[in-house]
Amino acid sequence: MASHQLLVSPPEGLRSPLWVPSRLLLGPGPSNLAPRVLAAGGLQMIGHMQKEMYQIMEDIRQGIQYMFQTRNSLTLAVSGSGHAALETALLNLLEPGDACLVGVNGIWGQRAAEVAERIGARVHRMIKDPGGCYTLQEVEEGLARHRPVLLFLTQGESSSGVLQPLDGYGELCHRYQCLLLVDSVASAGGVPIHMDRQGIDVLYSGSQKVLNAPPGTSLISFSDKAKNKIYARKTRPFSFYLDVKWLASFWGCDGTPRTYHHTTSVIGLYGLREALALIAEEGLESSWKRHRETSLYLQQRLQALGLQLFVRDPALRLPTVTTVAVPAGYDWRDIVSYVMDHFAIEIAGGLGPSMGKVLRIGLLGCNATRENVDRVTHALQEALQHCPKGKL
Amino acid sequence: MASHQLLVSPPEGLRSPLWVPSRLLLGPGPSNLAPRVLAAGGLQMIGHMQKEMYQIMEDIRQGIQYMFQTRNSLTLAVSGSGHAALETALLNLLEPGDACLVGVNGIWGQRAAEVAERIGARVHRMIKDPGGCYTLQEVEEGLARHRPVLLFLTQGESSSGVLQPLDGYGELCHRYQCLLLVDSVASAGGVPIHMDRQGIDVLYSGSQKVLNAPPGTSLISFSDKAKNKIYARKTRPFSFYLDVKWLASFWGCDGTPRTYHHTTSVIGLYGLREALALIAEEGLESSWKRHRETSLYLQQRLQALGLQLFVRDPALRLPTVTTVAVPAGYDWRDIVSYVMDHFAIEIAGGLGPSMGKVLRIGLLGCNATRENVDRVTHALQEALQHCPKGKL
Ligand SMILES: Cc1ncc(COP(=O)(O)O)c(C=O)c1O
Ligand SMILES: Cc1ncc(COP(=O)(O)O)c(C=O)c1O
Repeated sequence: MASHQLLVSPPEGLRSPLWVPSRLLLGPGPSNLAPRVLAAGGLQMIGHMQKEMYQIMEDIRQGIQYMFQTRNSLTLAVSGSGHAALETALLNLLEPGDACLVGVNGIWGQRAAEVAERIGARVHRMIKDPGGCYTLQEVEEGLARHRPVLLFLTQGESSSGVLQPLDGYGELCHRYQCLLLVDSVASAGGVPIHMDRQGIDVLYSGSQKVLNAPPGTSLISFSDKAKNKIYARKTRPFSFYLDVKWLASFWGCDGTPRTYHHTTSVIGLYGLREALALIAEEGLESSWKRHRETSLYLQQRLQALGLQLFVRDPALRLPTVTTVAVPAGYDWRDIVSYVMDHFAIEIAGGLGPSMGKVLRIGLLGCNATRENVDRVTHALQEALQHCPKGKL
Repeated sequence: MASHQLLVSPPEGLRSPLWVPSRLLLGPGPSNLAPRVLAAGGLQMIGHMQKEMYQIMEDIRQGIQYMFQTRNSLTLAVSGSGHAALETALLNLLEPGDACLVGVNGIWGQRAAEVAERIGARVHRMIKDPGGCYTLQEVEEGLARHRPVLLFLTQGESSSGVLQPLDGYGELCHRYQCLLLVDSVASAGGVPIHMDRQGIDVLYSGSQKVLNAPPGTSLISFSDKAKNKIYARKTRPFSFYLDVKWLASFWGCDGTPRTYHHTTSVIGLYGLREALALIAEEGLESSWKRHRETSLYLQQRLQALGLQLFVRDPALRLPTVTTVAVPAGYDWRDIVSYVMDHFAIEIAGGLGPSMGKVLRIGLLGCNATRENVDRVTHALQEALQHCPKGKL
């Protein structure tokens, strides 16, 4: 073999310097990085098993406990995006054959159902049109009928803009010996959540939404009930990378000596630590209030433009991601492109079941300001004036 | 429910600013970030589905093709560490019941065998003491006996310091209708590898070793043979997050329109792009030569200190990670701590089967310089003088 000659030459594209445009990210996430998080991203590496890193991980664990309002010791960051946290929950909680009940009122329930099916769970879907959420009564019917070991609900259904109420659902599940798993990727930090008080057994969230940190890590916490189910498994989870027992040990959750599992995202964890420090500094209640008020202002401005909010009931509107019905006669793609091309602002169309039905505007973390509302509504106003109408 | 009062207060630890010490990372990885990679980490977010991001992803794909010396279109970065790439390979290639042959001559083979077993594969281990590697004849015996669909080998066995030869193994596997999977996490970029010429069917590597980029992303490429096996599967892989068909579409590998799968590690990908640009700029052959020469210099300096190299055969010594037998009478922990405490240099002890047997010194990417060799050998010399001897 002529091993001294290269078959593939250095690619042309890599000769130009990296260039990144400046954008205001007002889609459903990722959001812009907060300045302090941005600064953390420019720091040099340390080893993932050095004591300073263990301190950063401990800070993160406590920050997540605060953000989720939980005292669960089994609380840590996963080295992957929101979907990796979803898989961490399902791969560890479910064994093949377990029954699982999934609220499918948008794409996130679809994804949870698919992941659970791949694992071999018996999945029962409660399907609703995007815009809907689940009442206690509907959930109780599902629990009584299917006797699942796990119920999946999405608190901030970012594809439809719905805020799922959570008071009482944990208690209800526990009456049926069912665990409650909640996706708060698009909501935690911006919307009240009380993991322990609400009896949520597994809660996960993302780094790149309200926290304004880079995507690539996600947050997860398990109640004692959830932990017991995991530790009583008869089979090993299909994934080693996402095996909670290994993660718990490496994250110092269970008092066992930390053993190497995988190389954690050191720089990503710097950013996550700073993002959690920012939310602790502002205070959860102030952050919730700021998101609520800013989104009410956005709703008002959108309605003043003659646009229709997709979620009818104001109590069910998600403050972090607002959905607007695509205005009659317009192609949503034209509007999204106009706002990007003329204002360098990212907003989004629908996703999964809401595709073609909505425009989505996110006000996430440090992006939730009245000034940003003014900027995006001004951009939308121009878009409505200049985009072709009557196309469809 | 008194939802207006918080149960958990903001943690004290998050009140102090983030502080990160300056360290020279000469363990088996992670390594220090190259200055250009460091700069990329300080850039602001853009959306994971914006056209500039697709360009960065395309640059990365071509950079990986260059680094791996392959023309495989199914080449992309995984949103997770080296272990996530290993799982991506095994979860997609293996179906329950498939036979799999694993070279276990250190921790990486152990990990691969464990992952394959979790998936339900029939795993056949070729076990060797750390320090050994596999001859063509040994592999042929295993292939003939077990008729596996997949063989796993580690090119740079970073726990033992062994460089596994690869010429001829692909051809041999193919004669037995077996695919060849190679872990080059600790070697690619620093050691010659020719994926296409050597007939490697799946090759993966990490970002945090020779590439000097942050941990959290990993590189992977699949040959047409491997792709065909994946696309002919009868069952869906247990993971959605690591499903290659979805990843291929999102990474633009297969010409299908890109659909949202998960939020990729945007900032991590900036760094990876810059790291690949640096290796393209230096040229693979120069990088291989620099790693070889620097490690020879290290070996010489270590032997001059009276230390013994763990791998006897010079041809089998891994240039990126050098292993030294723990000198008689010393506790390896004392030496590692001394070098860290007095010189802020990270080196490591053994891992898995090599635990207690070796010290490991990594010269990875921009850290592979004669100056660093001088620094670490000076530190080791002092450690040998000051650490307690005759303890064990
Ligand atoms: C509610 C919700 N769940 C899950 C996810 C998936 O997260 P990721 O894209 O980080 O995998 C998102 C992200 O957009 C989300 O909004
Ligand atoms: C040869 C080899 N394989 C796999 C891995 C695992 O990579 P990670 O720690 O990024 O999951 C490593 C990392 O140390 C390695 O050296």
